[in-house]
Amino acid sequence: MVGGGEGAFIGGVHRFAARLDDQYELVAGALASTPEKAQRSGAALGLAPDRTYSDYAAMAAAEAARADGIEAVSIVTPNHMHAPVAEAFLRAGIHVICDKPLATSSKDAKKLHKLAITQDLLFAVTYNYTGYPMVRQARQMVREKLLGDIRVVQVEYPQDWLTDNVEQTGQKQAGWRTDPAKAGLGGCIGDIGTHAYQLADYVTGIEVTEVLAELTAFVPGRRLDDNAQVLLRYTNGARGTLWASQVAPGNENNLRLRIYGSKGGLEWRQEHPNQLLWSPFGQPTQVISRGTGAAGTDAARVTRIPSGHPEGYLEAFATLYTEIGHAIRSRRTKGPKADKAVQFPTVVDGVKGVAFVEAVVSSSNKGGRWVKLPRR
Amino acid sequence: MVGGGEGAFIGGVHRFAARLDDQYELVAGALASTPEKAQRSGAALGLAPDRTYSDYAAMAAAEAARADGIEAVSIVTPNHMHAPVAEAFLRAGIHVICDKPLATSSKDAKKLHKLAITQDLLFAVTYNYTGYPMVRQARQMVREKLLGDIRVVQVEYPQDWLTDNVEQTGQKQAGWRTDPAKAGLGGCIGDIGTHAYQLADYVTGIEVTEVLAELTAFVPGRRLDDNAQVLLRYTNGARGTLWASQVAPGNENNLRLRIYGSKGGLEWRQEHPNQLLWSPFGQPTQVISRGTGAAGTDAARVTRIPSGHPEGYLEAFATLYTEIGHAIRSRRTKGPKADKAVQFPTVVDGVKGVAFVEAVVSSSNKGGRWVKLPRR
Amino acid sequence: MVGGGEGAFIGGVHRFAARLDDQYELVAGALASTPEKAQRSGAALGLAPDRTYSDYAAMAAAEAARADGIEAVSIVTPNHMHAPVAEAFLRAGIHVICDKPLATSSKDAKKLHKLAITQDLLFAVTYNYTGYPMVRQARQMVREKLLGDIRVVQVEYPQDWLTDNVEQTGQKQAGWRTDPAKAGLGGCIGDIGTHAYQLADYVTGIEVTEVLAELTAFVPGRRLDDNAQVLLRYTNGARGTLWASQVAPGNENNLRLRIYGSKGGLEWRQEHPNQLLWSPFGQPTQVISRGTGAAGTDAARVTRIPSGHPEGYLEAFATLYTEIGHAIRSRRTKGPKADKAVQFPTVVDGVKGVAFVEAVVSSSNKGGRWVKLPRR
Amino acid sequence: MVGGGEGAFIGGVHRFAARLDDQYELVAGALASTPEKAQRSGAALGLAPDRTYSDYAAMAAAEAARADGIEAVSIVTPNHMHAPVAEAFLRAGIHVICDKPLATSSKDAKKLHKLAITQDLLFAVTYNYTGYPMVRQARQMVREKLLGDIRVVQVEYPQDWLTDNVEQTGQKQAGWRTDPAKAGLGGCIGDIGTHAYQLADYVTGIEVTEVLAELTAFVPGRRLDDNAQVLLRYTNGARGTLWASQVAPGNENNLRLRIYGSKGGLEWRQEHPNQLLWSPFGQPTQVISRGTGAAGTDAARVTRIPSGHPEGYLEAFATLYTEIGHAIRSRRTKGPKADKAVQFPTVVDGVKGVAFVEAVVSSSNKGGRWVKLPRR
Repeated sequence: MVGGGEGAFIGGVHRFAARLDDQYELVAGALASTPEKAQRSGAALGLAPDRTYSDYAAMAAAEAARADGIEAVSIVTPNHMHAPVAEAFLRAGIHVICDKPLATSSKDAKKLHKLAITQDLLFAVTYNYTGYPMVRQARQMVREKLLGDIRVVQVEYPQDWLTDNVEQTGQKQAGWRTDPAKAGLGGCIGDIGTHAYQLADYVTGIEVTEVLAELTAFVPGRRLDDNAQVLLRYTNGARGTLWASQVAPGNENNLRLRIYGSKGGLEWRQEHPNQLLWSPFGQPTQVISRGTGAAGTDAARVTRIPSGHPEGYLEAFATLYTEIGHAIRSRRTKGPKADKAVQFPTVVDGVKGVAFVEAVVSSSNKGGRWVKLPRR
Repeated sequence: MVGGGEGAFIGGVHRFAARLDDQYELVAGALASTPEKAQRSGAALGLAPDRTYSDYAAMAAAEAARADGIEAVSIVTPNHMHAPVAEAFLRAGIHVICDKPLATSSKDAKKLHKLAITQDLLFAVTYNYTGYPMVRQARQMVREKLLGDIRVVQVEYPQDWLTDNVEQTGQKQAGWRTDPAKAGLGGCIGDIGTHAYQLADYVTGIEVTEVLAELTAFVPGRRLDDNAQVLLRYTNGARGTLWASQVAPGNENNLRLRIYGSKGGLEWRQEHPNQLLWSPFGQPTQVISRGTGAAGTDAARVTRIPSGHPEGYLEAFATLYTEIGHAIRSRRTKGPKADKAVQFPTVVDGVKGVAFVEAVVSSSNKGGRWVKLPRR
Repeated sequence: MVGGGEGAFIGGVHRFAARLDDQYELVAGALASTPEKAQRSGAALGLAPDRTYSDYAAMAAAEAARADGIEAVSIVTPNHMHAPVAEAFLRAGIHVICDKPLATSSKDAKKLHKLAITQDLLFAVTYNYTGYPMVRQARQMVREKLLGDIRVVQVEYPQDWLTDNVEQTGQKQAGWRTDPAKAGLGGCIGDIGTHAYQLADYVTGIEVTEVLAELTAFVPGRRLDDNAQVLLRYTNGARGTLWASQVAPGNENNLRLRIYGSKGGLEWRQEHPNQLLWSPFGQPTQVISRGTGAAGTDAARVTRIPSGHPEGYLEAFATLYTEIGHAIRSRRTKGPKADKAVQFPTVVDGVKGVAFVEAVVSSSNKGGRWVKLPRR
Repeated sequence: MVGGGEGAFIGGVHRFAARLDDQYELVAGALASTPEKAQRSGAALGLAPDRTYSDYAAMAAAEAARADGIEAVSIVTPNHMHAPVAEAFLRAGIHVICDKPLATSSKDAKKLHKLAITQDLLFAVTYNYTGYPMVRQARQMVREKLLGDIRVVQVEYPQDWLTDNVEQTGQKQAGWRTDPAKAGLGGCIGDIGTHAYQLADYVTGIEVTEVLAELTAFVPGRRLDDNAQVLLRYTNGARGTLWASQVAPGNENNLRLRIYGSKGGLEWRQEHPNQLLWSPFGQPTQVISRGTGAAGTDAARVTRIPSGHPEGYLEAFATLYTEIGHAIRSRRTKGPKADKAVQFPTVVDGVKGVAFVEAVVSSSNKGGRWVKLPRR
């Protein structure tokens, strides 16, 4: 693991996720960039001192040189370090599991994509909300054409924790997320808007072709957007809106996806993730519940416990890790073909996510004009 | 009453609304434009044959000439007839209660506004959702600055009844609403988007200055939009999105308003109108319930029955009628000054609503460009 | 109308209810028992002075003697006056619409029942929750055997307004409800528990044969129960529990009915009355919504406005009044046979309700022992 | 671990729970009672063959004899084996973590309690719902007297999976739970009713003194109750009802606790466990959310991830394991005093749970009479 030392949030989540299904062993880390903190963080996690690094490049080199070196690295640093760290490990021949966003520019993102291909390595990007069983269910229902032609996509991801200028109080999480040097081009749009975009992309399977965006920094002194409103045009003629905000009091982590087609509508909320609302047109809305017979094969495959016993955020995150673990094992024998049918997001999704943020920022900078996404 | 004969929906609602608080007597009507249907409809409602008209102009003239002529007319025709009917009754010296939209063009709308002033008559527009007690509560909380500065407005009004091309099956409600000649410029945006706009306008008290819109007609053969996504810029720097749709399966009449300010957020849903969610920043969300001590004076004034006994759509509609009735009585002695402090929407709101629809349609026709609203 | 003068709650509700569908005209009343208050209350409602009474017996006699005398009386007094007033009007040959409970003893209740038969008069009891469309829907689904054999009935009616000893502060509503001389044997069980019992009875169509109850007066100094927990045994072997409380903070008027059978379950809540949850065993729960195609004939018949436009408490109450009005008209030509198929509750339900309260009180007084209900 | 081999549900849950916070290593097991299945199950979990047992007594003896023998055993067998297995490990000097119910008779339960004391060993019972942060929050609020005096406790635990006679189809989970020889005295009451009782006991801190119960087996051929309705009398005068059912279609695992006191009410639902509804009397209901500032110290201590990222069933279960792990470590230095302040349930709660089931069954067998619980 690179990043995730003392005081970090997402590093701990990745460790929970890796542990839950017992598919990983954490044996090495560059958990922080100062030696003392790196050692302290490593010791707290029971890492051997000789595999506790404070420099990711050194770690990549050393682990690549060991017979028992790590098979995969998990990158959980602030955004600006994702790309350089990933590159180092790819060059060292180590599979990469990287938090989103993949990079802070499309150029870097595409470079990583190519490198993963030439190095013949697996590159997963932890858009973690795709791990929820009912997200898989929604995706399967769309693929099975239960909704008919998709017409409208409404996705939103409001939070409220940046309503005040908490970044000026020394809060670490807020600090780097509102600092262009560490977060990249986007604030709210990069931190959570990209999750919303990717979730819609993952479930609907249709491509956004153009965006028009209003990014706003409402809190005085904030340098990156804390609210993003985006119109979406899809390749099939569908239309969408995406709203992401970190200044919406009363919203904790209220990611919500609604999809409407010619035959029915779906609604899913991350805060109550075990239910999916399904409204076949002209019939009553149904509550499809994780673990029940109404959930299909894709959901069932990633369901651990029976219905009514809620699974949460960590379980969804763990599902990605477990699927990635299986894919890494398959690679041992089958090579890159192994991950043809994977359901977890990869570097391809990472590239798309970065391009989306760039287009949104560009649109907003132009005063709210339509901007095309690059064709894949 | 003009309009509202056999087979109409909204006419019956207006009659319920007028009756509930016992403030009106229905004595005359041009309920339909064919004599037979007009007579049948009038007879069904117990109107005297000599006050049952099939021509609104004749009705205006006749009633104005009677000593016991009507004091106010309620106009519940399809959209394209609102303006000519209103004009006729204004010219006849009769107060007007008109369904929205006020007119099918700003020119007509402003003309009515002027005429109401010169004729010294009350002109109410039944944006009925403003009659809900918890909408009044929300408005009062905004005015009392409990939310601080408003930053984000998210308003939506999805329905699903036009998911199929029901207008081609002879369904009357769908027929005129999807016919440009009767509905006006906008389809979904004019029918329900205008309610969403007006609700946000009413509660927030801040002005939309610019809009950017995507209007789509998803159902093959439909000539007016059935889905509208609109970005909103407000005069104080707030940003909003408005989504209206009639092709969103699972949504019946799902008008929902969310407002976020620097100090807190509000959420209200028309389908469960007796509760208002209030989230003071940093504190738990509270469920403010109609009829309780937590509801303020504005809500209490329009509350009929105790908390826990749900009031609904008809009650809210009736509240407007009752307030209008009181205003008409006050006019008898005080003249136009009487309605300085009225809380029901008037011709002013009607003019704004028409301008909003025009700007939205214009923006969409330009391919999604920012269009300014006229300054008031 | 008898009762319902200044300061009363339920009288106003009855008047709204009678007015909504335009089936009644209020022409006479003994709205209060003191002459001044009676006159003031009558004048406020626009009653003619000569038909404004302060004595119900005088009113019954006078109205019976008039050619244009009232056809039906609505009785909305405190509980202890229901029976004597009803008797007076029955004897005067006037149809009766009486609030629940019918009487304060089974003896009185049965006497009224007999009198209604011998006098050939309609006697409706306003168990108003039966007027909700989705209650009708639930009842129809049970009758159509969609639930299979009913096994479990869970009905509850918690409120919180008597959490403190508000009756000692002069609050009128609380005063008579907690006074054994005016409320009768039961406090909470008589005031709202009887609604819960009747609702379950109405929907399930199966008979309670035995009850076992714990009645408690939690608030110091209170003389009647403010909390009731009751076990129910049904004739078909089903088992139930009924909980009614007026000391449950956070509950406004939270009547809720859940019924479980061998094939499915239903859930309905009065505070959100436009939806009915239907869970066919082994399939997803469905949200059946008033006004949609999923609602059957019984619900549709009492539905005024389209789905998504909430109907509330007054509409449900009005439905009873309207059905009663139709029944009274039918009586004019058909006599008692007219009300064979009525769906509103009658004196028969009133008698059952009183017997239920008596059995519950008896069970509780015995320290919580099973007590049989009288066989019908 | 004893039990939890192939096809078992709860064993896997215990293993997830032990692993999540990285406090345990699974090194030995008697996962099944037939040698082949035991070996297969052990191998699947990576146990060494020499520490894979098919006989729990042999395991207790062998592990006690090893220098690296297990420090604690987790017992996840069907109910009838809890007591004999626990006794064997206690006698071997090994700490016990046992699923509920502790035993199938109070006699056995009390014997285990004594043995744990004389052997100086920790004995935890995994009433897992006590691990939810918002359950801890509720308990803390009660202890801090925010509710005032508790008056009413309504606890329910409906499921629907035994609506049909699935036990006759070979379904293993249903098989043993409906077999008196394996489940013990109670069916539904023992399987889930005991959870409901314990949850209320845990949160309220007041003692049930008497119960009156109706147990019913609705499904033809079923030998143990599948529905339980119980009245509760508490030592402080509070009154409660407990409903547990496995034949309530639409309910998955719908454990719900409501507590009402003189100053406020609380409501918590297991299926949406991250929120707690708090209704201070006379004020709006508040949604207290896990991970926010409104959650107190007890909840915060067992919270892993920020608000809005739902924690679920496994996390709550893991919390118990982690607390037990800490207690075991503390025992190493402090002995039994170490667990004075533990918040997880112990053998004491296990004894109470068994006594509750016995009293309920006794009451029902007597036809529904009040039965006293043993005084502690």
